[in-house]
Amino acid sequence: MSDTKKIAVILSGCGVFDGAEIHESVLTMLAIAKQGAEYTLFAPDINQHHVVNHITGDEMNEERNVMIEAARIARGAIKPLSEFNVTDFDALMMPGGFGAAKNLSSFAFEGADSSVESETMRAIKETHSAKKPIGALCIAPAVIAKALGNIEVTIGQDKGTADAIEKMGATHKQTNHGEVVIDQTNKIATTPCYMLDANILQIAEGAENVVKATIEMI
Amino acid sequence: MSDTKKIAVILSGCGVFDGAEIHESVLTMLAIAKQGAEYTLFAPDINQHHVVNHITGDEMNEERNVMIEAARIARGAIKPLSEFNVTDFDALMMPGGFGAAKNLSSFAFEGADSSVESETMRAIKETHSAKKPIGALCIAPAVIAKALGNIEVTIGQDKGTADAIEKMGATHKQTNHGEVVIDQTNKIATTPCYMLDANILQIAEGAENVVKATIEMI
Repeated sequence: MSDTKKIAVILSGCGVFDGAEIHESVLTMLAIAKQGAEYTLFAPDINQHHVVNHITGDEMNEERNVMIEAARIARGAIKPLSEFNVTDFDALMMPGGFGAAKNLSSFAFEGADSSVESETMRAIKETHSAKKPIGALCIAPAVIAKALGNIEVTIGQDKGTADAIEKMGATHKQTNHGEVVIDQTNKIATTPCYMLDANILQIAEGAENVVKATIEMI
Repeated sequence: MSDTKKIAVILSGCGVFDGAEIHESVLTMLAIAKQGAEYTLFAPDINQHHVVNHITGDEMNEERNVMIEAARIARGAIKPLSEFNVTDFDALMMPGGFGAAKNLSSFAFEGADSSVESETMRAIKETHSAKKPIGALCIAPAVIAKALGNIEVTIGQDKGTADAIEKMGATHKQTNHGEVVIDQTNKIATTPCYMLDANILQIAEGAENVVKATIEMI
C-alpha cells in the first residue's frame, strides 16, 4: 500500500457569498499537494440555499447545484458527498465561505440552533468516530462544532460567531492570521482565514498551517 | 509616490470550461502578492459565450455575465474592463481557462481567424504601446498573439493551438511545466500551465515564474 496520505475535502459551492470561498479552497488543495498528500474533492448534490451576485451582494433569481458549481473549483474532478467512505481517507478538510454556513449547514441563518446537512454530518461524525483528524478554515469550524459539540475551535475574533459556537457546547479560542487551534483529543485543527480581514498571503499561510496540523495528527 | 508595482489582471469568468481557470487565477494573484506587488482585477461586462456544467461538460440553458461570475474569484473586488486605464498600472496579466478563448476572444471557435473582445483588445494594445509588460498563462497567450501579431509566446506543446498561433503571425516555442517564454522586445512573458496535463503544484510554479518574469520587465 502507498503511504501517501489521502485527504477528503468538502466544497460547498463556488464563491464566498453563496458557496466555498475560492482562495481558501484552492490554497487548501495546494497546501495538501505541497505536503505530499493527495486530495479528493466532494460536495453534497443539493441545491444552493441561494445565488448571490458577488458584485452587488444581491440575491439572484437563479437556482444552482452545490456540487455542479463546486466542480468549477475541482475542474470536474468531484464526487457526490454521499460516496464518501471514511475508510478510504486519512483526514477530512473543510474550507470556508458562506457555503459552509448556508449549504452545508444553516448556521448563517440559525446560529446555535442550526442544523448540519445530512451527508456533511455523516462525513464529520464518521471521520471523528474513526479517530481521524478534521481540519477546517474560516466559518467551517462552526459546522464541525455543531456536528460534534464539545470540541475546541477558532473562527478568529468575531464575538457573535464565537458566542454561538460556545452555545453549541464547543469552546472558542481567539486567534490571529495564520494561527491554528489544535484540539488534540478530538483531532480537530481550525484557523480563521477570511473570518479575519485577511489578504491572500495570509490565507495561503493559514491554509498551509491548518493542513500541516491536520496531517500531523494522522 | 509608492514604488509598489501595480498589476492589472483580466479575468474571463469563473471556471475552466466557460470562464477563467480558477487555480491559475488564484495562484496568479498569490504570486503577485508574494512579489510585493498589488493586483486589481478586471473583467469585461459582457455575457459569457455559454455556461458549461463542469461535471458533465454539457452546455447549460443559462446566461451568466463574465464580470459577475469573475467577481466570485475576486470576492467582489472587480472592475469593468472598460475602466482600465493603462497609466494606473505597471503591467497586465491574463490567466487562462476557456474563458480567455470563448469570452475574451473567439479563439476556441475560430482559431487563427478569431477576433478579440473590444475592451480586452484595448487593454492589450494600450499596455503594449506604453511599453509595459504583459504576462499570460495557459491559452491566454493565443489572445495576446491575436491582438499583437508578431510576438513570441508559448502555450506548451499542443500542435493545433501552436499552428494557429503561428498562422496569426506570432512565433510559438514549446515549453514544459513551469517554463516561461520571454519576448524581451515586446515585453511578453507566457507559460503553459493547464495547457499541459499539470497538477496544482505545477500551476503554482508556472504562475510564480510568469509573474516574476513579467514584473522584472517593468
